[in-house]
Amino acid sequence: MLMTESASLVVMKFGGTSVGDVSRVKRVAEIVGEYRESNPGVGVVVVLSAMAGETNRLVALAKECVERPNPRELDVLLATGEQVTVALLAMRLNEMGIPSKSLLAPQVRIATDSRHTNAQIEEIECATLLEALREGGVPVVAGFQGIAGSGDITTLGRGGSDITAVALAAALKAETCFIYTDVAGVFSTDPRVCGEAKLLERVSHEEMLEMASLGAKVLHTRSVYFAMRYAVPLIVLSTFAGPFEPGRNGTWIVNEEELMEKPVVTGVTLRLDEAQITIEAMPSSIATMAALFDGLSERDVYIDMISQESVGGDAVNVSLTVPDEQSVTALETIRALVPSLRANGVTVERDIAKVSVVGIGMRYHTGVAARVFRCLARENIDVQMVNTSEIKLSVLVARKYCDAAVRALHAEFIPEGATVSAKG
Amino acid sequence: MLMTESASLVVMKFGGTSVGDVSRVKRVAEIVGEYRESNPGVGVVVVLSAMAGETNRLVALAKECVERPNPRELDVLLATGEQVTVALLAMRLNEMGIPSKSLLAPQVRIATDSRHTNAQIEEIECATLLEALREGGVPVVAGFQGIAGSGDITTLGRGGSDITAVALAAALKAETCFIYTDVAGVFSTDPRVCGEAKLLERVSHEEMLEMASLGAKVLHTRSVYFAMRYAVPLIVLSTFAGPFEPGRNGTWIVNEEELMEKPVVTGVTLRLDEAQITIEAMPSSIATMAALFDGLSERDVYIDMISQESVGGDAVNVSLTVPDEQSVTALETIRALVPSLRANGVTVERDIAKVSVVGIGMRYHTGVAARVFRCLARENIDVQMVNTSEIKLSVLVARKYCDAAVRALHAEFIPEGATVSAKG
Repeated sequence: MLMTESASLVVMKFGGTSVGDVSRVKRVAEIVGEYRESNPGVGVVVVLSAMAGETNRLVALAKECVERPNPRELDVLLATGEQVTVALLAMRLNEMGIPSKSLLAPQVRIATDSRHTNAQIEEIECATLLEALREGGVPVVAGFQGIAGSGDITTLGRGGSDITAVALAAALKAETCFIYTDVAGVFSTDPRVCGEAKLLERVSHEEMLEMASLGAKVLHTRSVYFAMRYAVPLIVLSTFAGPFEPGRNGTWIVNEEELMEKPVVTGVTLRLDEAQITIEAMPSSIATMAALFDGLSERDVYIDMISQESVGGDAVNVSLTVPDEQSVTALETIRALVPSLRANGVTVERDIAKVSVVGIGMRYHTGVAARVFRCLARENIDVQMVNTSEIKLSVLVARKYCDAAVRALHAEFIPEGATVSAKG
Repeated sequence: MLMTESASLVVMKFGGTSVGDVSRVKRVAEIVGEYRESNPGVGVVVVLSAMAGETNRLVALAKECVERPNPRELDVLLATGEQVTVALLAMRLNEMGIPSKSLLAPQVRIATDSRHTNAQIEEIECATLLEALREGGVPVVAGFQGIAGSGDITTLGRGGSDITAVALAAALKAETCFIYTDVAGVFSTDPRVCGEAKLLERVSHEEMLEMASLGAKVLHTRSVYFAMRYAVPLIVLSTFAGPFEPGRNGTWIVNEEELMEKPVVTGVTLRLDEAQITIEAMPSSIATMAALFDGLSERDVYIDMISQESVGGDAVNVSLTVPDEQSVTALETIRALVPSLRANGVTVERDIAKVSVVGIGMRYHTGVAARVFRCLARENIDVQMVNTSEIKLSVLVARKYCDAAVRALHAEFIPEGATVSAKG
């Protein structure tokens, strides 16, 4: 089966649980074999993660050895995880009679900058991959890793293998990038919170981007951003639930133009990993606000939601949310600023939750905010903060109400029966 | 500490047990640090094996996945073992304030042929290593691996990390190549067999070559051959027995010219992994002998000792020894040849042992064979076959007598008190 460069091809990426042990590697080889049989003439490039747990094991090994692992060396260590899985899968494919060879980042030449443990892809050379495809073989590429200009091994950080897959799909102009994982796709909300959660057939890149950053853990935002930027159609599906079948296994993630219908709200997401910090009775002025946010910015604190509320005179309470892991840093920073800001004090609240509705249709419909507030009011759930973007609306509520809020908003916005309900 | 290219340097290689876990990796870092302190201005290049057991674990993983692992992919898999240890040691050295970076075979550029799982080093580029040394750092090189012209990863086969170390020492014109292992050096015989075994202070490359191929497991023959060819002085010593101290920890392996004294016999070795095959009553002719050895050669059977004994008329019994793991192949091959050879039959004997005396002094002394036979006769040990080279004499005896034979020959040839006795 020879291929010309214009022949169609797909990228198939399998995550850590999909290659979690040898029997699963064998299953992945079968999936690749079945796809080739049903799609003769379509080239297949495979991208793999390390076995589930392996990256953590290697990090633990490094921490057993030193307190602060040298980032260059940590990357050398971590890159072994994917090297193991690609070698095993290529062996298995060859034994099945499918010519295949593993390719590490330096062999493909996945060029990155030199930010160790969090490198960005700069360029991918396609020559080696295209040659392997022309010969009719299946290249199996190690995800998560790259090579810096110095020749040093780099890794791409969280969600790195997804990024490798999407970047390869973009560089090779692949028809589709399949992201095989351990859930059947993108759900309208977390099925563990809301029994009515539906498997979505299609979402737009932008919706996925909001949903990913709002807590849907299917895909990392960086890879969705990459897919959006290069218009790579993704299919997220489960390795363990049979072939791709919209409504049963798999969700298309596509450009907005390719969406048939544009529901106002596509999904309801929930995020529990933020903390709310409130600076009390601060004199309201541009100068004090600037001093506050400059101080936080210097410590690299990521700020999500912001609100201010007048408390009489020219004083305001300023609330903001930050990732929980940064809340101690943020609190320390602000506490040191309290005297110069002439504020009364600062408090932190961790028993909060951020519930969001996301939908590309919000661009074209007004009144979503009103429906959200009415819906939560019916449930007697107080909203502590609000944040919006073009296609999402987030509310901060007390953590004890979060499940109720998700269920109420899902019932309000997600029409029943439109898609088949399924569990991941 | 800047280095010029003419500055002196050493290579330190640590085997699998020396880096068997994180605490041992830390110990290796201390050894490197202590050496640098006591030897300011001397560059240190480190070569590491994979953690003990890791290569076997990876092979088992491959065999769980496929029946016959594709050799190219097996090399990709196996190369991860050394990648883990070099990253850990480089981290540790950096944390101790010793600048260090790990280098994999493609980064150094250890060029090999493309015989996967058993590649031969063709060329080593020194530029990257010399640059790291000039900067005052310690390059930590992954042993056992190489890169073929195609860009494929290769591995060097058994004893591969020793070969890497010796080849680097040769390429860099290192003063000494330290081989850190789990025994204190080369003993005059196996201390488990003979309580009188002595730690040797110095042996010649050639003696070591004979002793390695005859069963002393300290070093693989390929690396000793390499060291001899490029006149690299080796020191074999234990990682766990304190610093190098001739007579207590460590044996020099040097060129013959550097040996002060040349004892007739330096060591007595024992090998239990051969089988003896006897073809009975075969008509003696060049043609039948040629047919016999051609047949074995076609099946890649390695033949060690050969003897023939007349049994009347023109018939001879031909005996040969082969590695035990090849004895079934050899037996099948010969059995198929028996009719055309017009022999009576073929038998195999596995309860044998090969005992050898090795010494560079045998070049200059006659009468060694006579002393060996007299010595064994006193013990009533029958010799079944004999084999000699310029610096060794081997006898095949019944396995039940092998320990007695070793002890008798050791007492006969190895002078007492010359070197301090020590256990590994």
